Parts: sequence; C-alpha cells; structure tokens
Amino acid sequence: MASLTQVLDADLDAIEVGSGILGTGGGGNPYIGKLRCREELRKGRRIDVIPLAELDDDALVVSLGGIGAPVVGVEKIEQGEECLRALRALEQELGHKIDATISSEIGGANSMEPMLTAAQAGIPVVDGDGMGRAFPEMQMCTWSIYGHQSFPSAMADEKGNIVIFRQTASEVWLERLARSCVVTMGAAAGIALAPMRGSFIKQFAIPDTLTQAWSLGKAVFEAQAENRDPIAAILEHEDGRLLMTAKIVDLKRHLKGGFAVGEVKLEGFGNFAGETGLIDLQNEFLVFRRNGEMEICVPDLIVVLDSDTGLPITTEVLRYGQRVAILALPCHDLLRSEQALEVIGPAAFGYPDLTYSPLPRTSEREAAQ
Amino acid sequence: MASLTQVLDADLDAIEVGSGILGTGGGGNPYIGKLRCREELRKGRRIDVIPLAELDDDALVVSLGGIGAPVVGVEKIEQGEECLRALRALEQELGHKIDATISSEIGGANSMEPMLTAAQAGIPVVDGDGMGRAFPEMQMCTWSIYGHQSFPSAMADEKGNIVIFRQTASEVWLERLARSCVVTMGAAAGIALAPMRGSFIKQFAIPDTLTQAWSLGKAVFEAQAENRDPIAAILEHEDGRLLMTAKIVDLKRHLKGGFAVGEVKLEGFGNFAGETGLIDLQNEFLVFRRNGEMEICVPDLIVVLDSDTGLPITTEVLRYGQRVAILALPCHDLLRSEQALEVIGPAAFGYPDLTYSPLPRTSEREAAQ
Repeated sequence: MASLTQVLDADLDAIEVGSGILGTGGGGNPYIGKLRCREELRKGRRIDVIPLAELDDDALVVSLGGIGAPVVGVEKIEQGEECLRALRALEQELGHKIDATISSEIGGANSMEPMLTAAQAGIPVVDGDGMGRAFPEMQMCTWSIYGHQSFPSAMADEKGNIVIFRQTASEVWLERLARSCVVTMGAAAGIALAPMRGSFIKQFAIPDTLTQAWSLGKAVFEAQAENRDPIAAILEHEDGRLLMTAKIVDLKRHLKGGFAVGEVKLEGFGNFAGETGLIDLQNEFLVFRRNGEMEICVPDLIVVLDSDTGLPITTEVLRYGQRVAILALPCHDLLRSEQALEVIGPAAFGYPDLTYSPLPRTSEREAAQ
Repeated sequence: MASLTQVLDADLDAIEVGSGILGTGGGGNPYIGKLRCREELRKGRRIDVIPLAELDDDALVVSLGGIGAPVVGVEKIEQGEECLRALRALEQELGHKIDATISSEIGGANSMEPMLTAAQAGIPVVDGDGMGRAFPEMQMCTWSIYGHQSFPSAMADEKGNIVIFRQTASEVWLERLARSCVVTMGAAAGIALAPMRGSFIKQFAIPDTLTQAWSLGKAVFEAQAENRDPIAAILEHEDGRLLMTAKIVDLKRHLKGGFAVGEVKLEGFGNFAGETGLIDLQNEFLVFRRNGEMEICVPDLIVVLDSDTGLPITTEVLRYGQRVAILALPCHDLLRSEQALEVIGPAAFGYPDLTYSPLPRTSEREAAQ
C-alpha cells in the first residue's frame, strides 16, 4: 500500500473512519480534531507525514495528544491549541526544539491531535503510534512498555494552566498524576510526553499506522461507493475475523474513576442466530465471550460496527437494540511480547484468570493447515 | 518582646505549642516537623531567623510547606526532604538560588517545614508568615490576597515525583491542581511557591509570627511551671478573650473533598454553666455560636484548648466528653481588609449570611469606653 506523505483535506475523512475502527470503541471521537485539522489546512498550513525509516536517529520526537474522558470531549470542545501549548512548554523545559510529533494512540481522537499540532508548529508527524489501537492509560504505550521514561512531560488546558511533570517515580505515577490534574481541569487537556530519539521510535513505534488508518478508511468508502460489503472490506484490509452479527439486548455502562466501564449483551442473527455474546468494556472493548466462553481479549482488537454502514460505534454511543457486527483484528507483534502483556494483557485489566491467545493472521492460519 | 534570631533545640517545644495554638484546630500537628528540625540541629546545621526589616528588598523568598490532609500526616510520616526537593526543583525552574524561606501558615505543622528546609539548604527562615494562623487553602495567604501570582511553583513527594505548576490561570487554579496532585500522591507532599521579593514580603507578610509562636509557647510553659493558669497566660499574650469553658457533648466530623468538616456542640461549665456553644469546622475552627447566635468567625482565631493544661486540641483529635476552653484571638489587620475578607471572610467559607465583626483588641476596647 502507498504511504501517506502529506495529509490533504480529502484524506481527513478516511483517517477519521480508519482511526475510529482502530479505536476499538474508545479513544474518543476524532470528529472535532478532524475539523481543527481541516481549518489549519485551509489557513495554508501543511500536515507532512514522515515515515519511520526517514527519521534521523537523533531526531527528538514527542508523543502527544488529548487526555481526558471521551464522553466529556463530546460536549466540552477543545480550544484547539492545548497540545501546541503543551509542546511549547516541553520545549521550554528542555531548552530544545522538537523535530516531529507522533500519536500515542492511533485509535480515536488522538489520531488527529499530533497532525493538528504538527501543522501548527510547522513540523512533520511520524507515520506510526504507540498502541496501534486505543488503550485507556498512558503507560500502555509501546514506549513506556519498552523502557522509555516519560519525564519531563507537559500538560496544558484551555484556561491557561500549564503543569510540568518533571520527574515521576514510574510511568504509572505519571498516568496517575496527569489523570488527577486532567480531572480537575475539567476532563480535557493536551499532554506532550518526554521526547524520544528517532532511533528508539524506529524500534518501538507501531509502524505506518497513520497510513493504515487512512487506507482502512478509504477501503470502507470504496466498498460503500461500489455497493460492496464494507465489513468484508475491513476484514480483508486488517486480516481480521468476523465474530458475530448481533443485536444489543442489554447494556450496562457507568463512569468509574473517570473511565466508562460496563458490558454489552448480544444476541446473534444471520449466520450467528442462536448464539449469545458478551463484551466487557473499559473505555475500549476488552473481552469478547461467545455463549459464555472467552474467545478474544486484549491486546487484540475487538471492534463494534454498525452492521449496515460498517462505521465504528464507540462505547459512549452504544445503545439498546443496535444491530452490530463484532470483528476481531490481530494486534501488532510489539503488543504480544511477554513484557507487553504484563501491561496490556487481560490480567492488567483485572482478569487474572484469562489467558491471552493471539488471534492468528491469515499467513499463520495457512501455515498451520 | 525579644526577637528570635536563631532557633535552638530548646526553642522548638515552645514553637510547637505556640504554633499549635495559632493553628485554630488545623494546620496539622507540628510534632513530626519538630523532631526533623531537632535532627538537623543535632547534625550541626543551623536555623537562622531573619526579621522582615533585615531582608534585602531584592531577596528571593519562597513560601513553602507541607500540603495534604492533616489527619493523614499523623500516620504517613514525611520522609523529611519533600520541601527541600520542591525548593531545588523551583530553583532549577527559575535558574536562580533562593535566599530565604518563609512559612505560608504559622499555625500548625507548617511552622516547622520552612525552618527544616532552611536548615537543610543553609539559608535563613523569615520571621513572619502568610496567615498568622492556619487556613485550609493556599490562595488564603496574604501574598495571594495582595496580588502575588504563585507560578511557577514546585511540588515533590517522598516517592520521587516532582510536579511544576508552570502557569496557573489563578491562585485558586493552583490550589485546585496542587490539591488533586497531592491527593494522588497519598495526601502528603511538599510545595514551594513562586518566589517573592523582599520588598513585597516586608509589606504583605504577617510580621514576627515565628517569634510570636515561640514566645506564646514559652508563656504557656512558664505558667505551667509556676502553677499559674496557662489559659490566662495565652489570653494575655495574644490579647484574646475567653469565650467559654465547656464539655463537648456532640461531635460530627467527616472528610469531604480532602477536608475535615463538621461541628462541635458544647455545654458550658463554671462561669458558663447553662450556656450552649456550637463550633463549625473545616480543617480549622470557622464559626463560634453562643446559644445559637454567631459571636466569632473567620478570620479571627477560634482556639480550643484542654481546659486543664492549656494545650491546643486539633480538629482531628476532638472527642466526645472532652473538657475544653474556647478562646477568641484577634487576627492581624492584613486579614481584615475588604480585599482579604473576600478570600477568608465567612462568605468565602460558605456563610454568605454571616457578617464578620472584628474582635476588638484591648486598646480598641479601652478607646471605646
């Protein structure tokens, strides 16, 4: 697939849909961020995308994005320069200019923020991210998993508050402190994490995920335009598996510690008539059970789509009676190591008894036959 | 009264008792801080006290102290260098050395912290503070009331976390953000607020309050040693008024938003037999009512003492059946201006219908006769 080297107005819708699918129900809605990016492009700014391979080994790359509760982002619209101010505060703290931005999570709203900030700051955005999907907490990034220490980091809100986390006892402590500040700030702020060198990023970023989101969104649009099944197009693009087509027959969802947690009960239809499904969620979809048996869990992606349009449904807009398609997509190998599973495997989300069994890719399935 | 120019081991007990009385039930227990100061002195370090008048107009003075919930401080003992680390982080942020420390509140534990840090850093502590008593929130300091903007400020905990509040939208925003961090840090941390110039401090610090706390404590000890009434000694020293001797007959106290709030019901004895009293508290004692009528309120000091020993009782150790003496002490004039009452008057504590009527000092009472 062709790499994205520059994001134009016409690409933004595809990135929105692709990143929405990769959000696995969470990550916040990229819609507002898309409009902000569009505004920057119309002002004449550029969004240049730099592939990992072209990054200088010494380049200083900052992972940045919005932090807060997705459900708040729907009503409390960002001012638009939160991440830029966080980036500037970080540059001031370091006494260095930053060379490029990168997304901490490609899934959802934080696909857009690093592009927006890159356009505003006149620097490129790296084609990659720290999750290849969305996760609820910052220490769940590949950089944190593989040894990057995210201090100093800087956080800014729309009111003029700027907080620097100069030193944090661990990545989890950064997450805790940043989370308590953002709750106080009104559950929405921008955060710029301690810079990483190009050499580190090349090794530990999930590669090409901006291109992936864009190309995935385009696949959906093309299928729609050609009256093909968009769900089949997504499965083919992502090498995924259809878990179930189903109706939502019960939904429990509440806020706990700033996160949306709950479960979705499903009744299969079509080829899946007579089956039941259950999805657990914590901002993102965590675990899928068929007829009471666990089948797919984090870090593999569980995606809920509108069964007709193929468009993603996020946890905050799930509702009773929706007809949905549930997909499983394989996560990147960087998320499947023992080191990674300690942080983003089922036990880390409160399921000590579940064992992660990686969703095989087509090549692996074929090799096994 | 003689000014304190250097704090020796023998002075610490008196400062502890005096600052406890000025804490009006809050401010945390100075006991642990006293032991830390003693340890520094025994290591050969000095606690030099500099009077306001001797401060250079250009000197950089930092108000610092512990922040958190007093009730936590009883069990989660400070590591001892939290404030020093906050001071060093602030110096790094500013690129300047700090010339002296000053207490944000002389009442309670934060009488000790600036002495401890001064000894550790080899700089003097200023004879004065920002409250002349204790208050629950940072924006209630005279510096904040009279226009100082407390950013950048630095906060450190015992785990190695360091947070810089580089810019805050207002003094209240600093308080909010620092409070949410300290709750996450385990309700105890050290904070060093943006430095002030000597010229500003001379105008807006409550003067000589370290000497005042020391001399007040000595007055209590001398009365005890000479079998005189320590309560009379306190009233004379502080130009205060005995409100009631009473038994605690009911006590409501709970934690709300990190603060201890509640009320104490009193039944008078001795000269006050037949009277009832009611004290409202929020970390500190806020309002005293006699037979249902408001008589004394913030910012004047309401002090609860053990009726026999004259030693102060803080809100967290109040209990049913205690026999206490309730005193009212006049606050400093810097706390009585219209500007100050907006921040620390009864309305600011949720009593819009109460009007503050300053407790007259002896000279004022005599002039009125």
